Amino acid sequence: MNGSRFKFICAYDGSAYAGWQVQPGRVSIQGVLEETLRRIVKQETPVKVHGSGRTDQGVHAKGQVFHVNVNTRMEAESLKRALNAYLPQDIRILSGASVSEGFHARRSAKGKEYRYHIWNDEIMLPDKRLYHAHIVKKLNLEAMRGAMQSFVGTHDFAAFTANPQREVETTVRTIYGFSLAASGPRVTLSVRGNGFLYKMVRSMAGFLIRVGSGAEPPAAVGELLAARDMRTARVPSAPPQGLFLWRVWYRTEPPPFRD
Amino acid sequence: MNGSRFKFICAYDGSAYAGWQVQPGRVSIQGVLEETLRRIVKQETPVKVHGSGRTDQGVHAKGQVFHVNVNTRMEAESLKRALNAYLPQDIRILSGASVSEGFHARRSAKGKEYRYHIWNDEIMLPDKRLYHAHIVKKLNLEAMRGAMQSFVGTHDFAAFTANPQREVETTVRTIYGFSLAASGPRVTLSVRGNGFLYKMVRSMAGFLIRVGSGAEPPAAVGELLAARDMRTARVPSAPPQGLFLWRVWYRTEPPPFRD
Repeated sequence: MNGSRFKFICAYDGSAYAGWQVQPGRVSIQGVLEETLRRIVKQETPVKVHGSGRTDQGVHAKGQVFHVNVNTRMEAESLKRALNAYLPQDIRILSGASVSEGFHARRSAKGKEYRYHIWNDEIMLPDKRLYHAHIVKKLNLEAMRGAMQSFVGTHDFAAFTANPQREVETTVRTIYGFSLAASGPRVTLSVRGNGFLYKMVRSMAGFLIRVGSGAEPPAAVGELLAARDMRTARVPSAPPQGLFLWRVWYRTEPPPFRD
Repeated sequence: MNGSRFKFICAYDGSAYAGWQVQPGRVSIQGVLEETLRRIVKQETPVKVHGSGRTDQGVHAKGQVFHVNVNTRMEAESLKRALNAYLPQDIRILSGASVSEGFHARRSAKGKEYRYHIWNDEIMLPDKRLYHAHIVKKLNLEAMRGAMQSFVGTHDFAAFTANPQREVETTVRTIYGFSLAASGPRVTLSVRGNGFLYKMVRSMAGFLIRVGSGAEPPAAVGELLAARDMRTARVPSAPPQGLFLWRVWYRTEPPPFRD
């Protein structure tokens, strides 16, 4: 008896956490969700939460998805309300639904969208500091827009992951779209794909920032992808606090880009 | 010998502070600025920072102004850079200028603008929680817009301050303008005046939220102002984290409204 399966969409501020995944002796988002759910459904054995994927220390989420099996008569909406009553304010459940045993938050996912926020100004405003990377030098946004189009399509992203050996099968992924929006000092990169390697979004953002700073030409993206070499110092990881896991979708077609 | 006088504009995230003003045994923004300046100019006696006014515990600033006299050969821009190097990331100096002894951050101020941010949605997103008040019930923005126009002009604001006895002279103030902007779940109130009583902006915001929730009619603002009674439970203080001291100006004419 596995209980009923639920799907939840959650948002979190990753500032205070060691990341999504449970780690011994550290506070993780997954761990807080598991313990809070266990207390709500009064289960004596541990509850196991299955995320759509991990997020690193300091990375945020607007639309992380997880599933969980629990023995409860509560409905999804009641579980959502109970979770929001007991969870800390930096983790919120946005929606909950009852799903079949066929649904798996990671394996059923068809694609994901990440956003990366940059504060491009001399001074980082205090209320932006936890959710943006700070880049002082004025970025060339047109160069960045040109470079990011080279990521679109199916490529071997070995040069844009921190640890290609971690991938059991392949470092090939498909990027469906990459866009840049600017509003005052705020620059937002949005990227969608069928899957992302370890630190892949932060590697792409880190390289795009180098392109925007004039340290690399836009054409370098295509060259690095074609060479299929491992990541070097040319591809730094942009800092974690700029990154948000924005959305995960489970249908074949991605939803239209929107805020 | 009083040294040279400097004017600085600063922004801060008030989340971690007991407020602007120095208090024994507590960490204040003024106290951190005074001690950081004292170390930069290597002064043995305490440095005294004069703000345009106080902000309460948990209240933020985008454009607080202060002046200070220090014995230094450093120029304003160098002091600004040194301050930003030594201050914590939740306090930033946006600009610095050398001013005459005739300039006083509080006494020379001609007016101020405050902004109050509301997150009007079922769920408070984690990355908004430190900078917005959370109001679940859908606000009637047109009722709020109507009510806020009654604040504009010269009135006795005794009903919209937490402690009218604190004012030595008068509880009469002039509001130059009050506006409301909404973008998705985010509602921003902007108010400008020649001066604000203790908790006056949070009292006005608290009452406007009651109007938007249907608990008070828009016409109640005019009645409360005309009655000139002390504040009652009808006028709650909206929570501090939604409030930003946005700007202080020193010319007769306020600058045009802008972001």
